Amino acid sequence: MKAAFLRRAGDLYLEEVAKPACVAGSILVQVKEIGVCGSDLHYYNDGRIGDHIVTAPHILGHEASGIVEEIGMDDSGFTVGDRVSIEPGIPCMSCESCREGRYNLCVDVRFSGAPPYHGMFREYVLHDHRFLHKLPESVSFTQGALVEPLAVAHNAMRKAALRAGDTVMITGAGPIGLSCVEMARVAGAARILVSEKSAHRRRAALELGADFVLDPDEGQLLSAIRDYTGGRMADCAIEASGSESAMGDALHSVRKGGRVVFVGMGKEEQTIPHAEILRKELVVQGIYRYANDFRPVIELLSVGRLKGLPWVSHRMPLADIVRAMELANDTAAEPLKVVVYT
Amino acid sequence: MKAAFLRRAGDLYLEEVAKPACVAGSILVQVKEIGVCGSDLHYYNDGRIGDHIVTAPHILGHEASGIVEEIGMDDSGFTVGDRVSIEPGIPCMSCESCREGRYNLCVDVRFSGAPPYHGMFREYVLHDHRFLHKLPESVSFTQGALVEPLAVAHNAMRKAALRAGDTVMITGAGPIGLSCVEMARVAGAARILVSEKSAHRRRAALELGADFVLDPDEGQLLSAIRDYTGGRMADCAIEASGSESAMGDALHSVRKGGRVVFVGMGKEEQTIPHAEILRKELVVQGIYRYANDFRPVIELLSVGRLKGLPWVSHRMPLADIVRAMELANDTAAEPLKVVVYT
Amino acid sequence: MKAAFLRRAGDLYLEEVAKPACVAGSILVQVKEIGVCGSDLHYYNDGRIGDHIVTAPHILGHEASGIVEEIGMDDSGFTVGDRVSIEPGIPCMSCESCREGRYNLCVDVRFSGAPPYHGMFREYVLHDHRFLHKLPESVSFTQGALVEPLAVAHNAMRKAALRAGDTVMITGAGPIGLSCVEMARVAGAARILVSEKSAHRRRAALELGADFVLDPDEGQLLSAIRDYTGGRMADCAIEASGSESAMGDALHSVRKGGRVVFVGMGKEEQTIPHAEILRKELVVQGIYRYANDFRPVIELLSVGRLKGLPWVSHRMPLADIVRAMELANDTAAEPLKVVVYT
Amino acid sequence: MKAAFLRRAGDLYLEEVAKPACVAGSILVQVKEIGVCGSDLHYYNDGRIGDHIVTAPHILGHEASGIVEEIGMDDSGFTVGDRVSIEPGIPCMSCESCREGRYNLCVDVRFSGAPPYHGMFREYVLHDHRFLHKLPESVSFTQGALVEPLAVAHNAMRKAALRAGDTVMITGAGPIGLSCVEMARVAGAARILVSEKSAHRRRAALELGADFVLDPDEGQLLSAIRDYTGGRMADCAIEASGSESAMGDALHSVRKGGRVVFVGMGKEEQTIPHAEILRKELVVQGIYRYANDFRPVIELLSVGRLKGLPWVSHRMPLADIVRAMELANDTAAEPLKVVVYT
Repeated sequence: MKAAFLRRAGDLYLEEVAKPACVAGSILVQVKEIGVCGSDLHYYNDGRIGDHIVTAPHILGHEASGIVEEIGMDDSGFTVGDRVSIEPGIPCMSCESCREGRYNLCVDVRFSGAPPYHGMFREYVLHDHRFLHKLPESVSFTQGALVEPLAVAHNAMRKAALRAGDTVMITGAGPIGLSCVEMARVAGAARILVSEKSAHRRRAALELGADFVLDPDEGQLLSAIRDYTGGRMADCAIEASGSESAMGDALHSVRKGGRVVFVGMGKEEQTIPHAEILRKELVVQGIYRYANDFRPVIELLSVGRLKGLPWVSHRMPLADIVRAMELANDTAAEPLKVVVYT
Repeated sequence: MKAAFLRRAGDLYLEEVAKPACVAGSILVQVKEIGVCGSDLHYYNDGRIGDHIVTAPHILGHEASGIVEEIGMDDSGFTVGDRVSIEPGIPCMSCESCREGRYNLCVDVRFSGAPPYHGMFREYVLHDHRFLHKLPESVSFTQGALVEPLAVAHNAMRKAALRAGDTVMITGAGPIGLSCVEMARVAGAARILVSEKSAHRRRAALELGADFVLDPDEGQLLSAIRDYTGGRMADCAIEASGSESAMGDALHSVRKGGRVVFVGMGKEEQTIPHAEILRKELVVQGIYRYANDFRPVIELLSVGRLKGLPWVSHRMPLADIVRAMELANDTAAEPLKVVVYT
Repeated sequence: MKAAFLRRAGDLYLEEVAKPACVAGSILVQVKEIGVCGSDLHYYNDGRIGDHIVTAPHILGHEASGIVEEIGMDDSGFTVGDRVSIEPGIPCMSCESCREGRYNLCVDVRFSGAPPYHGMFREYVLHDHRFLHKLPESVSFTQGALVEPLAVAHNAMRKAALRAGDTVMITGAGPIGLSCVEMARVAGAARILVSEKSAHRRRAALELGADFVLDPDEGQLLSAIRDYTGGRMADCAIEASGSESAMGDALHSVRKGGRVVFVGMGKEEQTIPHAEILRKELVVQGIYRYANDFRPVIELLSVGRLKGLPWVSHRMPLADIVRAMELANDTAAEPLKVVVYT
Repeated sequence: MKAAFLRRAGDLYLEEVAKPACVAGSILVQVKEIGVCGSDLHYYNDGRIGDHIVTAPHILGHEASGIVEEIGMDDSGFTVGDRVSIEPGIPCMSCESCREGRYNLCVDVRFSGAPPYHGMFREYVLHDHRFLHKLPESVSFTQGALVEPLAVAHNAMRKAALRAGDTVMITGAGPIGLSCVEMARVAGAARILVSEKSAHRRRAALELGADFVLDPDEGQLLSAIRDYTGGRMADCAIEASGSESAMGDALHSVRKGGRVVFVGMGKEEQTIPHAEILRKELVVQGIYRYANDFRPVIELLSVGRLKGLPWVSHRMPLADIVRAMELANDTAAEPLKVVVYT
């Protein structure tokens, strides 16, 4: 099979390697489509993310859909030919976090694409049956690859405890911010405000259901929100950019008793308007990936309430993986989500 | 002004009475549209609901919209001519429930239309400014009268802690059940199942967004739900009929760890499959009217996410109030919601 | 080793059988003390509980402490000689409930002592390392056997969302009700009310920290609670008897917005004052065993905040298992908890 | 009557002024004891706190108990001679926060002692009957004055969602930190860790129930916590110092999925280890005073579960108010809480 290896920053190449054997207890999946995530790009550009360093040729990719090719166990619940979305993290299911249902916080999770665990930019992959999710016919393989970023948005919305009729502020409209716009719309937001520096992303946000978009570089963000909401401000804010100033905007833009969810990971330390948290008795939560969010996302895709597709800007074969990365890097190309197919 | 008085069961008549004077601290509202609720019908048919007994000519009605006519205070936040929806219960704002934000549970609430407090089937009414809610131009007076039943559904959905992608079971598709169907759709349900005995109500449920309707009299309800959900059952159930068998259906139809909200008030005592609550660790909650639910409902109507109108089956002038009651009583007329206008 | 087998209702005997071999992936535990639970007694008296039927000689018992004797794996986290409490249910850790952290609701749980899974009334048992919990020196083996019923009470208190200063009503003061009294005291209850028919159990409740005990057979229960609480009623109620009348008492005894937790499993169907749930917007939850509750219980025992011991009324060797069962059956002996040791 | 006026920073004097007349709708309270809060000291030292500036002679003080002297209304629920604790903030009970039960966030709250509203360092005060709370005989006037800081701790514990058996980290052991130690003990903490720079406060924390105290200036705070907890870290942290480094300690000291409550208000902006919030999916909340917390605190004092008294270090007559302030300023005097009586 073909697989894309990253040797070091900027050095990505396709290679023919042996197709994995379907070992007992595993399922072999033929990968169909894989999304390029910001973290893939980080590895491609820098060769590392924090302590995760590419030290040997490494397969990236963790947003993937595929077809069940071979089944190495009884009672897996799957049949050869099943179309699936792949949940990339395989937790230990033994530690305290796992036993509490927060398997995304597992200390020993093996997460596809994060070194030393190989990812999905390849034609075949072995996976754990508990973290494969069937796709009905109404969900395309492209959508199946987008379940992963949409699951992040679903987790964010759970933490936001959104109520029907809420006003939601979203800072940042990259792929995760856009998936939060879609999800907030589905989850009952009456009004969605988005702040984003890039014009083409603001346009995409409007297409996906945002009611009011703002450019934070123009200043006057808070007074614009105050005017738009009649002084009431937002019920909750989703911070999806990782930038320090957006974190402040998120905390300032919610009303008393409001909720703020931090989705975008930025620098280790951030300077934030901390007194807002006390003065308004805010509930502030961070999210880390997702747990138990794939199923509901697939449900929403299957009935057509989530689309996902409007924020796929480019789609090309796995053979063009280097071009896919370069496109995702090239702001002039106005990339949103780039997806490759096998 | 004209007002409709109920003297005793079945004896309802219009009478010309003095328009209320706008006393200090109050706002005088010209009533525009008023919905006929099941409880109005109860009083009309029986002259009482439990301990609330009609002993003197009494004005019913608690689902109303109108126009601000006169303002008896400074800083009310209203202007003459403002279009409003009227939240009918005026709580004491002093008791423990009020101080906890659960003013619907106030021991001293004065609820319009529940004896001895007169209701809204009249041309003018005095009300407390804190429980009047402005309607934007995009919300009609008919919708403004429907805010009240939709607020019941909004409260039900808050208690159901609905998550985007959930499967929701709703038992009973009268006006409250139908408003729950609309609200569940808006609040992120992926699939809505409805059980209802009456064919025209099942049709209305489908029009409002239900995915699967069942007639409980046909039997096999639970196995049909099991088949439809692939054995997983519903994430939550909203019981909106008040019938004992539907209460059992609600408890049986949810999955382990599921949530059940009781909206329909039935007999004081009910025989229910109680062991289901323990075995599945269900969260079961009852609701009583609403608190802080008018604002988000109006937000959702104003942006067009809620419609309300599809379940208004009849609309006629206040002069025809007796006919309105009789229609609401007449199942052959297939009434859903009957609204009168002044 | 010695093990106690139940052949059929009333037919319990000790037999010498082979000590289990420590298979790979398991830990062999020398059992030290085992509590007699009401469900053990049920099997002893009736030969069955619902669908769980004793069809072959069966070892009961699921409240146990012991010593690690042999370890069949690397990195278990245990050392030979470790003192442990045994969490008796071993879930699949694959199903939706397990992945959500509610492993007590696992469809495939293997629960010690519930046919067909043998229990702990024996000298040695194999167990899963994830469901063994170390006991510090400050916790005795008797207390280690009581962790199980205390974990039920801990789960009940989690569901009750107890707040420091709450008034708590507990119906039923058998071993589970008494463990709820102890736990409610630790968890911040300002006042604990207990209703219980048996005088010696009411005495035990007072010794464990109850402030006010009532005999439901004397009538006037609700007016006594109303008087005691100055009309405010309880903030939450824990139903620990499984009797229908106590379920009604629990629902009636809480204030508006209160919480009711059903711990005692009774008949499949119950007739309850259902309108209370709506009128007071109660939160009603059922519990089924426990999940993630062993660790905090052991913490509380280790620092001396929980005692457990005051409600152990009888203690005898495993050889006297038949006498232990008969004692637990004999109300004249005023049994609370009977514990056997190896 | 005598009242203590602050003219400007450092200029505090007693003056004889007219006793307030008991106007309709109010209750006149003879003040008995008043605590000196850190914010009183701030005004005394700086003449301002942020935007609240002392521009005219001003009466400080908001922690007070007293006796009902005269009642200007029917049905107040009080009798002349009732002993009371005074909840110092009187909210509007009309705004959205008030209607949601979060009256501490009221935009128009009149808070005793915060300019322009006079406080309690005087012999008589008029107050709203809804924010007076009866004290039973078992609660002393000194304890009655401490209800206010204990209510802050009660609010913190509500937000911390403490579970019986939790390990709690508290940063800062001033009066609020110490009240959190007491409250955490009552609310079910198995282990309480306290970090505090001052030796006499660390001693006080140990006396009030802390299990392990640390001096953050000694360094190695996190590794000491890691060792003490066997690597598990705390379940929740209460930050009660307002210092930036303690905020970081709080975020670092909790486990995955843990909770952090910010009680101490520091600078407007703070630099914190923000990535911890995401990586561990923390729930972070701020608190602002209290709402509905006086009643449970008084309940806990009345049954003797809370004491309050151990952290009163000095007590003197109102005539010595300047000395009281100077003592509270004088670290050599090792002040914890200073209380004055009339």
